[in-house]
Amino acid sequence: MAPQVTVDSINPKVIECQYAVRGEIVILAQKLQQEIQAKPEAYPFQEILYCNVGNPQSLGQKSITFFREVLALCDHPAILAKSETQALFSSDSIERARKILDQIPGRATGAYSHSQGIKGLRDTIAAAIEARDGFPADPNDIFMTDGASPAVHMMMQLLIRSEKDGILCPIPQYPLYSASIALHGGTLVPYYLDEATGWGLEVSELKKQLQEAKSNGITVRALVVINPGNPTGQVLAEENQKAIVEFCKEEGLVLLADEVYQENVYVPEKKFHSFKKVARSMGYGEKDIHLVSFQSVSKGYYGECGKRGGYMEVTGFGADVREHIYKLASVNLCSNITGQILASLVMSPPKVGDKSYESYIAERDGILSSLARRAKTLEDAFNKLEGITCNKAEGAMYLFPRINLPKKAIKAAEEVKTAPDLFYCRRLLNETGIVFVPGSGFGQVPGTWHFRCTILPQEEKIPAIVTRLTDFHKRFMDEFRD
Amino acid sequence: MAPQVTVDSINPKVIECQYAVRGEIVILAQKLQQEIQAKPEAYPFQEILYCNVGNPQSLGQKSITFFREVLALCDHPAILAKSETQALFSSDSIERARKILDQIPGRATGAYSHSQGIKGLRDTIAAAIEARDGFPADPNDIFMTDGASPAVHMMMQLLIRSEKDGILCPIPQYPLYSASIALHGGTLVPYYLDEATGWGLEVSELKKQLQEAKSNGITVRALVVINPGNPTGQVLAEENQKAIVEFCKEEGLVLLADEVYQENVYVPEKKFHSFKKVARSMGYGEKDIHLVSFQSVSKGYYGECGKRGGYMEVTGFGADVREHIYKLASVNLCSNITGQILASLVMSPPKVGDKSYESYIAERDGILSSLARRAKTLEDAFNKLEGITCNKAEGAMYLFPRINLPKKAIKAAEEVKTAPDLFYCRRLLNETGIVFVPGSGFGQVPGTWHFRCTILPQEEKIPAIVTRLTDFHKRFMDEFRD
Repeated sequence: MAPQVTVDSINPKVIECQYAVRGEIVILAQKLQQEIQAKPEAYPFQEILYCNVGNPQSLGQKSITFFREVLALCDHPAILAKSETQALFSSDSIERARKILDQIPGRATGAYSHSQGIKGLRDTIAAAIEARDGFPADPNDIFMTDGASPAVHMMMQLLIRSEKDGILCPIPQYPLYSASIALHGGTLVPYYLDEATGWGLEVSELKKQLQEAKSNGITVRALVVINPGNPTGQVLAEENQKAIVEFCKEEGLVLLADEVYQENVYVPEKKFHSFKKVARSMGYGEKDIHLVSFQSVSKGYYGECGKRGGYMEVTGFGADVREHIYKLASVNLCSNITGQILASLVMSPPKVGDKSYESYIAERDGILSSLARRAKTLEDAFNKLEGITCNKAEGAMYLFPRINLPKKAIKAAEEVKTAPDLFYCRRLLNETGIVFVPGSGFGQVPGTWHFRCTILPQEEKIPAIVTRLTDFHKRFMDEFRD
Repeated sequence: MAPQVTVDSINPKVIECQYAVRGEIVILAQKLQQEIQAKPEAYPFQEILYCNVGNPQSLGQKSITFFREVLALCDHPAILAKSETQALFSSDSIERARKILDQIPGRATGAYSHSQGIKGLRDTIAAAIEARDGFPADPNDIFMTDGASPAVHMMMQLLIRSEKDGILCPIPQYPLYSASIALHGGTLVPYYLDEATGWGLEVSELKKQLQEAKSNGITVRALVVINPGNPTGQVLAEENQKAIVEFCKEEGLVLLADEVYQENVYVPEKKFHSFKKVARSMGYGEKDIHLVSFQSVSKGYYGECGKRGGYMEVTGFGADVREHIYKLASVNLCSNITGQILASLVMSPPKVGDKSYESYIAERDGILSSLARRAKTLEDAFNKLEGITCNKAEGAMYLFPRINLPKKAIKAAEEVKTAPDLFYCRRLLNETGIVFVPGSGFGQVPGTWHFRCTILPQEEKIPAIVTRLTDFHKRFMDEFRD
């Protein structure tokens, strides 16, 4: 018999799942890159400028020295006692590595850990959350995961029973959410962020969408909020967060708080507040609201995407439900220990008086202030382009400009059976080597067009991006202007 | 409104999912350990002897020096050029780290990689598979994963559409399979390994179970084979493997080959053959059979469970199906880079002439020969116990002895509403501190009772385990003998 597995016979949920961040445009970019390597004069540009993924170190961002020192020492503890190690490593990294190894049963960094992660590291993280929020955090509420994505999947797996279960998600959203909901067979219930008010999140919109979903027979189980926003870059105001918490409490919804960009805030008038802090400051405790906060080592100023570290803090569930979350974690045994160690480090970096403190602060602030400058430069550049408006990049790593495409361009796109935003992004890539992700991958108000651009290319490359983009956009408009 | 998520309203597939390896007995063991720490005289033993999980380094197994040297250098490449590094690290580990860094775009070990894993590392792995099997391997067929578990989930997610889709699984089986099938809503179609012939895998049994499933309206999509076996420790003969390949080809089934114990073979008369080698040696290529092989850095002589590295080699699927597998991999972005590097290292360890070669071989063979001795000692000890029979541990890391429980013991177990094998294991743990996993977690012929015991406690602890087990078993039989 011939092999039986064809596209017609695989899980339709897999077919339905879309993940634009690594979709068509990226595959085209990789193809162009190979062609350029083989034949540098093949295109009018010599390199691909990846502005599609929040992957800072792939674009030259340096890792934080202290973090990497500790990881290296934990990987090869045999050198801890050697005199040469004193010359190669900072004294506080040696101290920290020893402390971490002492927290690991048998000092075995090569062993599976507790399925929630090494207890001592969870203690460190809980203490850091407490210090951040001013409210208690319990290490038993921490589930360490290989980046935030598996944590999101775990919660979707727990909550979604069928297509009758809905999850309220922002539009635009990070496509992990739509992908995960599709894979688990649930229904994405969209709520629109208001572009006119800087991608504001209006509780009236949440209520409206919840009612509409209910009237369609959907049981809404959770609300996803991404703060700071991906792809929108907005940072929620505390008052707004309070209203969101109140809404979740009133409706009995799980609040899934994607807080992976908590260290990425670039404007002095905004500040990150965790939803747990907001809920607790309103007097709401364990019994009042289901609240899950996601954090990752991939973002922040550290950008350690490849290490796949992260955690979720799970509060407000009964002990019996918690047991099932634990079981889900245990089926994969545990998350990777290097990522676990790194998650404890980013939550507990060097402190005043530590040997590495000053160099650490210099590295951290160098990255964060450069990101803020890049965000501003790109935002200004977008806003100078005909038909493009771009909101302020208050936080995260992205801009999500809106492009008012001429009718002629939309028609040209339709003729090649392509979404207009994809049409624009494909042309941009082919002519300049710049990689944006079309807005359709994130969702947008029907009839509007956007694209996502990261602020991550190294600062010296930004002027070239601006020039190439500006020239391209002018040509594009000259060709298609109505 | 009160929080709405209760056990009655979570995904019933999650409730149904069982994962015995980290189940009740292990939770009890952790509780006893805490009690002993607080009050050493609380129990007639001073330590918990974990024989429940294949987690070698948690029990004192040392990591392989060369592997850890390379990982440390890749984590902190800044020290590569320092003179002290020459004194601390072997010269070939420095060389290898440089080579690996050159294979990583931008030398960025902190960046997300290609969703299948870093291309250069997949090249290394494909070359190693080719050298192992004598047949070509394609780096584009390799999907690197955080251990083998996520790879198994990915294939289940791809293949299972509803409870009408079945997966043929050995009984006894590693509970990851039953857990993953339950989570994805499919049906486990059991086939029984024949304990009387050393846990033999009979194709007649496969055919029988396939027919029965078909007559129940189940579409069987894949066959899981674990070789060397977990929990049974058997190593399949090549002729047997050929018959299995033929069966899968004839029936159009995907062969899911769990080959994570490929380096764990302890008897000279048996040898590991990959299913891909067997299929190719029969003349079957891409067009003839869907074949997926799972490998992990957690097993072998290296036992690097905490690093969560592994890969699957996916062959025989059309390009369109492959695209969907790629999409599933891309939703989680990539597996952790440390695990990816380690996976390349275990598949390509130091070679003759390399500086570390001799010390590496000494470490490797020291571990493997000790494991073989431990397996034999435990096997012999079990076979001396009244009513216990234990098959030969040919490979993997486990023994799965059968215990002929007296009727009185079964009755006593029933009185406390406990499965008889769990009853035995709980008593054993409470009286000796030894942790076995009851056979019911792996599946067993109804009316037979077993437990799984790893061969992983350090060699000097084995005599104490044997003595404590023997004394306990005598007491148990004296109490319950019919």
